[in-house]
Amino acid sequence: MNKQVLLAKRPDGLPTLSTWKFEENKIPEPQEGEVLIKQHYISLDPAMRGWMREGKSYIPPVAINDVMRAGTVGEVIKANNNPKFKEGDFLSGWGGVQQYTVTNGDGYFKIDPNKAPLPKYLGIIGMPGMTAYFGILKVGELKEEDVVLVSGAAGAVGSLVGQIAKIKGCRVIGIAGGKDKCDYLVNELGFDSAIDYKNENVNSSLNQHCPDGIDVFFDNVGGDILDAALSNLRMHARIVICGAISQYNTTSKPKGPSNYLSLLVNRATMKGMVVFDFAEHYPEAIASYSKWLGEGKIKSKEDIYEGIENFHDTFLRLFSGEKLGKLVLKVLE
Amino acid sequence: MNKQVLLAKRPDGLPTLSTWKFEENKIPEPQEGEVLIKQHYISLDPAMRGWMREGKSYIPPVAINDVMRAGTVGEVIKANNNPKFKEGDFLSGWGGVQQYTVTNGDGYFKIDPNKAPLPKYLGIIGMPGMTAYFGILKVGELKEEDVVLVSGAAGAVGSLVGQIAKIKGCRVIGIAGGKDKCDYLVNELGFDSAIDYKNENVNSSLNQHCPDGIDVFFDNVGGDILDAALSNLRMHARIVICGAISQYNTTSKPKGPSNYLSLLVNRATMKGMVVFDFAEHYPEAIASYSKWLGEGKIKSKEDIYEGIENFHDTFLRLFSGEKLGKLVLKVLE
Repeated sequence: MNKQVLLAKRPDGLPTLSTWKFEENKIPEPQEGEVLIKQHYISLDPAMRGWMREGKSYIPPVAINDVMRAGTVGEVIKANNNPKFKEGDFLSGWGGVQQYTVTNGDGYFKIDPNKAPLPKYLGIIGMPGMTAYFGILKVGELKEEDVVLVSGAAGAVGSLVGQIAKIKGCRVIGIAGGKDKCDYLVNELGFDSAIDYKNENVNSSLNQHCPDGIDVFFDNVGGDILDAALSNLRMHARIVICGAISQYNTTSKPKGPSNYLSLLVNRATMKGMVVFDFAEHYPEAIASYSKWLGEGKIKSKEDIYEGIENFHDTFLRLFSGEKLGKLVLKVLE
Repeated sequence: MNKQVLLAKRPDGLPTLSTWKFEENKIPEPQEGEVLIKQHYISLDPAMRGWMREGKSYIPPVAINDVMRAGTVGEVIKANNNPKFKEGDFLSGWGGVQQYTVTNGDGYFKIDPNKAPLPKYLGIIGMPGMTAYFGILKVGELKEEDVVLVSGAAGAVGSLVGQIAKIKGCRVIGIAGGKDKCDYLVNELGFDSAIDYKNENVNSSLNQHCPDGIDVFFDNVGGDILDAALSNLRMHARIVICGAISQYNTTSKPKGPSNYLSLLVNRATMKGMVVFDFAEHYPEAIASYSKWLGEGKIKSKEDIYEGIENFHDTFLRLFSGEKLGKLVLKVLE
């Protein structure tokens, strides 16, 4: 049987158990030209919360009663004359929150489980890795010696952003929740300093850590942290808007950055990004990561939970902050 | 005697009469190397409200008990061995809200009263003109056929922004307060359409006027209008943050744009500008304006009031919207 998680209704605020419909259906048969993938890992990402919301966005929302959209890695266990993939191939793609997926292969690509453990294909060499790479280097227009601030710094994207900036010769300050995460940033990942937003006033800590201001702010969080960063900009600063996890579950209007006129004072730029725009350049990022991993210059961590039955609780860890690095759910092996 | 307006205290909200100190002092004598300027016109600009506020900005605030900072045009009536200027020269510069100014000439430049009436040097060929020109062309990266939205469109800067965009082959929508101003934009200045924010829902009017969204938004206003524009962006849109007149007199925190995640969805950019950064390129703008004025392609309007005694009431017109075009105060002639 194929265990699946469907979107039952659009949540108002934080998703609850009734947001989802848990189903067990017969494992589908691949039709002519299709493959059947047995999924090993499902990626859990903050962006998923956005896909549950109605309205215009960069991709259509997940429809009610559709399998919840999610990135996956798994193995082709049956192929029916698919032009690209055959049995035994490992594929990364948008398999959704389910154990088995039938697809014609569009949007999937082959990965090599011998080159890296499968969960890495959902992390550093997956969407978060691509987001970090192109977000900080292209959108953030990173330059050597920039002072770089990253929010959500212990997360899948943020931890890579900070490490890339260190590799490029920048001074890096991370914002994360709790002493453990902050210690991890400085001691394990080589950040220059870290601010614990749960126990510090971010604005005054920023003042202390970077009295001359920030050149690049890579924001995954929004809300008060974005306002604090805006209060500490250097001239010609760049703010990369990658996400706003603090605002995804608000039931009221999202909080806009009340300090946005700091953009004027500092001739600064705030720019939104969506990783898919860089798809044709992914190989460049993968090559860089491979090199840096080989040289021991970059670390990536996956936080792996087990069982599709635990999807809901695990998903909520994205918003409670109870995870470190890339959040992944193992569903079959 | 020299009538002067000094900043008596920093206002909380809209300036009141007690914000100012009205003084009459002896007309000063120019010392060695200085000139004495008799000021004809004083420029009244929204930016002045910002200069009254304490705290870090793009220039230092006006100090308490200093003459209020303002742009001026006037005539040198006494020169004491100044290396650049002599009696009879007409100068534009930062003379402040007073009738006579003594200066060594730094920051002043000579203007020709025969080439254009003096008030134009505070408008189209002054700071507002430079702001409009570089703001829309350089910061807004204007391209032919862009759909351009301008707020504060009947103001000194906005009216020029829209006309430049028309000259460059764009479709232009202006936002202004009241039917008269909207008629002026469309009938006199050639805007394609206008939205009366006092009597229309800006968001739904935008939906109607530009269903495919905006490429460039030039914002002088902020607040709800910025939010409405953010809800109607095209992919890769550019937002030029020139000012936020709706927020300058709030006694609470300024309203941040709660729709700022539209920057992400639309891969859009929000960029702050300060006109002084373009100082070395002013001659280019002046040449373009002269050409367009000569060809009858651009119009500029000054709204001129008289008497330094009326400074306070006239200044408030910036915020009540009771003026059309560039607000100027005639102080002496």
